[in-house]
Amino acid sequence: MQFADRLNNVETSAIRELFKLLGKPGIISFAGGFPDPALFDVEGIRESTDAVLKNNPGPVLQYGATEGYQPLREGISQHMAGKGATVAPDGLIVTTGSQQALDLIGKTMISPGDKVIMEAPTFLATIQCFRLYGAHVIGAPIDADGVDVDKLEALIAEHKPKLVYLIPSFGNPSGAMLSLERRKRILEIAVRTQTLVVEDDPYGELFFDQAPPPSLLALSDEVPGSREWLAHCGSFSKVLSPGLRVGWLIAPPALLGRATMCKQFSDAHTSNLTQATAAQYLTLNRLPTALAAVRATYAERARVMAARLQAELGDAIAFDAPQGGMFFWARLTGANGKPTHAGDFAKRAIDKLVAFVPGAPFYAHDPDQTTLRLSFATADVAKIEEGIARLGQAL
Amino acid sequence: MQFADRLNNVETSAIRELFKLLGKPGIISFAGGFPDPALFDVEGIRESTDAVLKNNPGPVLQYGATEGYQPLREGISQHMAGKGATVAPDGLIVTTGSQQALDLIGKTMISPGDKVIMEAPTFLATIQCFRLYGAHVIGAPIDADGVDVDKLEALIAEHKPKLVYLIPSFGNPSGAMLSLERRKRILEIAVRTQTLVVEDDPYGELFFDQAPPPSLLALSDEVPGSREWLAHCGSFSKVLSPGLRVGWLIAPPALLGRATMCKQFSDAHTSNLTQATAAQYLTLNRLPTALAAVRATYAERARVMAARLQAELGDAIAFDAPQGGMFFWARLTGANGKPTHAGDFAKRAIDKLVAFVPGAPFYAHDPDQTTLRLSFATADVAKIEEGIARLGQAL
Repeated sequence: MQFADRLNNVETSAIRELFKLLGKPGIISFAGGFPDPALFDVEGIRESTDAVLKNNPGPVLQYGATEGYQPLREGISQHMAGKGATVAPDGLIVTTGSQQALDLIGKTMISPGDKVIMEAPTFLATIQCFRLYGAHVIGAPIDADGVDVDKLEALIAEHKPKLVYLIPSFGNPSGAMLSLERRKRILEIAVRTQTLVVEDDPYGELFFDQAPPPSLLALSDEVPGSREWLAHCGSFSKVLSPGLRVGWLIAPPALLGRATMCKQFSDAHTSNLTQATAAQYLTLNRLPTALAAVRATYAERARVMAARLQAELGDAIAFDAPQGGMFFWARLTGANGKPTHAGDFAKRAIDKLVAFVPGAPFYAHDPDQTTLRLSFATADVAKIEEGIARLGQAL
Repeated sequence: MQFADRLNNVETSAIRELFKLLGKPGIISFAGGFPDPALFDVEGIRESTDAVLKNNPGPVLQYGATEGYQPLREGISQHMAGKGATVAPDGLIVTTGSQQALDLIGKTMISPGDKVIMEAPTFLATIQCFRLYGAHVIGAPIDADGVDVDKLEALIAEHKPKLVYLIPSFGNPSGAMLSLERRKRILEIAVRTQTLVVEDDPYGELFFDQAPPPSLLALSDEVPGSREWLAHCGSFSKVLSPGLRVGWLIAPPALLGRATMCKQFSDAHTSNLTQATAAQYLTLNRLPTALAAVRATYAERARVMAARLQAELGDAIAFDAPQGGMFFWARLTGANGKPTHAGDFAKRAIDKLVAFVPGAPFYAHDPDQTTLRLSFATADVAKIEEGIARLGQAL
């Protein structure tokens, strides 16, 4: 089957139909994975954009290197050092959002029929992106400590996948946090089985109280040889602004070189204006303050959402309250004869002018139809209270 | 052969090696296809960026629609109307440079083994992009009036290609201008043979005296049914700024829908900040003035380059002086025992601290080794005079 044929098979209809309904007047949406625009550091970004256009307009408005704007590569290198990971500026490329990093991995790594292991559930757009390249996606089970490493190891032995894709910190949609012990084991397994592990880390900095364990990338120094089997996707979308479309890919040199060549023919390079803006912003040292505000706001919203869900839906819903990230991952229990099918429940919720995403599309196969994802990032506390009350009515 | 294997076969080494040498101190380069940054309307762009971040920061810094930022889609629709082409805002999508438009066409249209017809010579990155998707590229001969339509028609009949890719106005590298009569015939052939024609039009506005004939897109209204067999790639890279990475794709609804879905998993969407900046810039009505300056400057540089080439290289080089665009396409004649191999000549030129691109890589097959491409866009008149003098010495 060719790419064009696979395109016809992409299962986006349910979600796309849902998102069309989000335009309904008065709807409160917990559906998207959007940061709250009220938290964007507009002043810092404006100052940065203005500075680069004032001081360095030629290179900023000209064609640039496919690998990325060098001051930003240096800035990301320092940013990663602040999170305990050693990456030389030339050890990363800048991508048009981390979605492009995932696409370049798919494009360079996956041939039709190749097997790929991902958490079940995991980020919908990665499932679809890799499937477009013909991947056969196999789900690995998770619990509150992230992917089940024993089962992952068995799946790797059985399927010999082209790669394993993980969101170790505040997984989307699960919110799960991979434990330190499991992180180390995964690196050891990658080396032993010579399997590429792709670490996607858009949410790691959105913790409420306690920072996550070090990333696989940061831990790779402790596990000899593991860096050769590790790719890492990062992004400023959740901590600074998605509209800039600035992400990055860190990977072993051969893979990075191939991804760069693919990127050359995909979009030549990422906008220099947005890259230079991000680089300048990093030098202002405003990110820690901006991030502190994001964390505090999201923590409060998650606390309110947990309390209201318990008050309004009671036994009918079960969840682990998240400690960071953007999402509640919940399950309809069916207690007291209440509904158990999240897809049906989503339709009734839309009638009551509140939206969430049913969990099924986040599974590559064997979806759990009782699951649903609620974002607490975009709506403020008053909207969360009202929205969850409507959810209670819909139930 | 899989994508990953095809990646190993991409012939970029010659050009990449050449471009590495461009960093040599004191080199004068006619090699790149870069606009002159001194001509960027920095003031207008700064004003635009500042306005959108001041007036509308939320949507500009947030995630956006894959299809594009709606005010820009409307702006491009009006911009195209100014060039005689009728396109509804929903009839186009914004892409991360027109390179992405080409990539999306390749991704959605080309399956391994599909045939694609392109001018010989044509834009190197399109050959490589389509080849990565497994295209078998067939070159159609050109003359000063653009592609030879009789031969193109015969090639279509013989090969039944998936698509025909053309740069009708100021072709890269040829500088050729497809005549009005040939444009109409190509649209008729597209309808009759049910063959998709992809019109790439980055240079059409860079004319010196006389505007090119209407684009295939603009002419499609006159040829019933032709719009169904026509895709059009546009870009602000050559008229405003490449660093913004804002291009667009106009295509029949089914193709546009598939391209949009592919884009969703390629980079989610193009930067809203750069899209909003471009949209705002269009409303300032500064583009006509900025373009007039670009045209006048490039016309002067082309005039000087033609005169100096004739004075310094005489009979040893042959070319048609371009009437717009960014390039001289020339041929080493071998007169008086002078060299005829442009690749060898390029190396000797580098020794004399002047660079150009040999023509061979612009051919998908059967390269003409005597050809070369010289850009007159980036270097100013003094540099052009000095650079061509060095070229004379190298000869």
